[in-house]
Amino acid sequence: MFDASVYTARRDALRSKVKGGVILLPGHVDSPINNAANCYRFRQDSNFAYYFGIYKPGMVGVIDEGGRSIIYGDDVSLDDIVWTGPVPTVREQAEEVGVKTTRPLRDLPADLQVAIRKGQRMHIAPPYRAETVLQLSEWLGLMPTHVRNYASEELIAAIISMREVKSAGEIEELDRIAEVGYEMQTAAMRMAQPGEQENTIFGVLEGIAATGGNLTSFGSIISQHGETLHNDKHFDILREGRLLLVDCGVEAYSNYVTDNTRTIPVGGTFTPQQLDMYNLVLQAQEYGIAHSKSGVRYLDVHLGVCGVIVEGLRAMGLVRGDVKEAVEIGVQGLFFPHGLGHMMGLDCHDMESLGETLVGYSRDVARSKQFGLSALRCAKELKEGFVVTVEPGIYFIPELIDQWKAQGVMKGFINYDEVEKYRNFGGIRLEDDIVITAGGCRIIGKKRIPIAPADVTAEVQKGRFAGKK
Amino acid sequence: MFDASVYTARRDALRSKVKGGVILLPGHVDSPINNAANCYRFRQDSNFAYYFGIYKPGMVGVIDEGGRSIIYGDDVSLDDIVWTGPVPTVREQAEEVGVKTTRPLRDLPADLQVAIRKGQRMHIAPPYRAETVLQLSEWLGLMPTHVRNYASEELIAAIISMREVKSAGEIEELDRIAEVGYEMQTAAMRMAQPGEQENTIFGVLEGIAATGGNLTSFGSIISQHGETLHNDKHFDILREGRLLLVDCGVEAYSNYVTDNTRTIPVGGTFTPQQLDMYNLVLQAQEYGIAHSKSGVRYLDVHLGVCGVIVEGLRAMGLVRGDVKEAVEIGVQGLFFPHGLGHMMGLDCHDMESLGETLVGYSRDVARSKQFGLSALRCAKELKEGFVVTVEPGIYFIPELIDQWKAQGVMKGFINYDEVEKYRNFGGIRLEDDIVITAGGCRIIGKKRIPIAPADVTAEVQKGRFAGKK
Repeated sequence: MFDASVYTARRDALRSKVKGGVILLPGHVDSPINNAANCYRFRQDSNFAYYFGIYKPGMVGVIDEGGRSIIYGDDVSLDDIVWTGPVPTVREQAEEVGVKTTRPLRDLPADLQVAIRKGQRMHIAPPYRAETVLQLSEWLGLMPTHVRNYASEELIAAIISMREVKSAGEIEELDRIAEVGYEMQTAAMRMAQPGEQENTIFGVLEGIAATGGNLTSFGSIISQHGETLHNDKHFDILREGRLLLVDCGVEAYSNYVTDNTRTIPVGGTFTPQQLDMYNLVLQAQEYGIAHSKSGVRYLDVHLGVCGVIVEGLRAMGLVRGDVKEAVEIGVQGLFFPHGLGHMMGLDCHDMESLGETLVGYSRDVARSKQFGLSALRCAKELKEGFVVTVEPGIYFIPELIDQWKAQGVMKGFINYDEVEKYRNFGGIRLEDDIVITAGGCRIIGKKRIPIAPADVTAEVQKGRFAGKK
Repeated sequence: MFDASVYTARRDALRSKVKGGVILLPGHVDSPINNAANCYRFRQDSNFAYYFGIYKPGMVGVIDEGGRSIIYGDDVSLDDIVWTGPVPTVREQAEEVGVKTTRPLRDLPADLQVAIRKGQRMHIAPPYRAETVLQLSEWLGLMPTHVRNYASEELIAAIISMREVKSAGEIEELDRIAEVGYEMQTAAMRMAQPGEQENTIFGVLEGIAATGGNLTSFGSIISQHGETLHNDKHFDILREGRLLLVDCGVEAYSNYVTDNTRTIPVGGTFTPQQLDMYNLVLQAQEYGIAHSKSGVRYLDVHLGVCGVIVEGLRAMGLVRGDVKEAVEIGVQGLFFPHGLGHMMGLDCHDMESLGETLVGYSRDVARSKQFGLSALRCAKELKEGFVVTVEPGIYFIPELIDQWKAQGVMKGFINYDEVEKYRNFGGIRLEDDIVITAGGCRIIGKKRIPIAPADVTAEVQKGRFAGKK
């Protein structure tokens, strides 16, 4: 992905941040579907990709106490070549990323044991795949249930401090892959016609992602029930008058991703009720973008966005009372029960395997327990080079409305009779990915995915005419 | 997928085949990509699907010594419903498959320990996912590295004896999903135009599979280098005069799959050399289909196909000498270094996680060590209800030719000078899926994917004209 010097500099910086001990970064092995030889599409561990830059299974990266980088891995045999074709050697691949020392994988456990006997600490990141747990258990002689307890806070903090600030090269790659994300979203708009199946759109987006990248960056949400936040069902037929929420992204072979949400009126026409609510979400989203800049806590941007939403809902008669007070006690939780966004980069929820709170919060910004606000993934002060999503939404979740109404939650602020009129509304979310710049921020990608109501409608209309040809 | 009575009958049959002890069939959990919450598309374990028929993560099926079926699993909480929408309870799902007893997952280890203390054997299938190894290790108190040693031969044999014979209902599902497999292959043919990218075809096939099913049944092979048998690279641009090998399949939500290969002349015109070789592979494939019937060993069908191939190559001057003798010593290994086919059903390589040799061979058919023949996955006597693939191929693998030529392997039979003329030919494979019937066999699916050279050419031409519109 990058020049060898980039990876060498990253490893040197990591080594200087982590005092002593062995830094052990296992790359991924293949992940079996239904037998050992039939695996999901390979996807490298993001930390390994960031520091060792090789996108092949079965490699392990080590930075020893003396600062030397070593890649452990095995070459393919001639018998395998009949099945896989010629493959570069581990040594050739290591050279590409500035690593001079390579060893067969079987040497790793003994090498680690030598270091352990010398009293050197093993710095590992928290494993999230069972394969990695098993490997670490075996290599380090730990009980599998205890492996996670050995994750190194020092290593985690060092990695976060480096990966959270994206370099120009990383942003270039994010801009590049954003074009595929654009294609996915606009394809969905053109297909948002009555009678079309959610599933067909799902399949087409899978295809676009697999053509332009390696994978979708997460299971695409393509649903006329946008009020279910992580709806993985997509088996309905599109109906005129419904809103289709499309939250999807692509992941490049480099692991860099996109993550965008648009909410599309099936057939291309918003009802007046939908249009009012859509414009409110859009206003909130643009408030979020306008206020994201270096030195500002993302928590405060989130709370500002909540203010916009509550203010708008008050104008519509769904909420009453003082806006500031309403936001403080969390009235917005009924309508917007998640956070404004998360960091993004080599992962969609960037570095989330290292610990969501460690990534998104800092010593001076603690996590709230308030419903809704507690789901905010990124709250800390923004810095130049941060990449975050801006994704407010307004949803009408029947189960949640019933629960709050029955318990009379914040009934002084919430006009439940008015809320009931939106019971079958569904949900709206709008999401762009931004990078914090010197002057403020900008949206990732060469052009913004259509978001103004007229632009979305126009894109849907294109598909309607294409279908009628 | 099927009526509750089908699953009850299967569990009863399994219980009667496995004498004593507890039958423990863990379903799959989600498989993380880059953090615990971002997972690959869920795919159920095939044994769990066959006996317990539920396609949700986190369930475990038990048949106790008394023959009672129990499903262990946890219900979704109200908090989760905001994210996932309403989900049927474990009890409701269990009733659908005829299971009356359900328990929370946390009860499982203690229940198993009670049975172990009573001296009851634990019958488990060999785990192939690390998650399952970790679960079994914890539940049964075994070292992770030892879990596989506890796989029950009795259970494996019982499962194979049941799953190898497909019911009418299973064949109906295979016929149904075959329509999606047909669509994938013919879409590839229409896209096989000079200048098109292999990767674009790959993406389109991913999309068709995700629209009509859950997943591709394995990583699609879409390559102008068909001589690399499991080529997972698809980054080349299609060039006139090359052959594009497309080996792909879809997996339904039920887990039933398709697996087909076609080899397509880019642009729609075979060279005379390609056409001769294609016709030979087609002749071999049709010989395989014509000779597959109940009571015949698939090993013998494979050897018969080898005879057709060697005979044809002799007519072309690449091989010389006595055909029968050549087949016996394995001359075909240079050109056809794999087996004629494998069983197929709930897995593409059906039941392969139970052990390839246990599935494909029997007490009276041993596995050969001869290069090529050793890769034959199914050799045993065919029975009515078996579903197998028929997929001969002819390849020119430069690395293998160089190795054999340098060592003078079978130089009395192989005309290496003539073989050199095909050095850059690539490879051809043709594959259909068949079910053994009372009278012989038939190809799965309502219509056969185009395979005669004129039919393949016609399909490619359709795409050419579509592109020119």
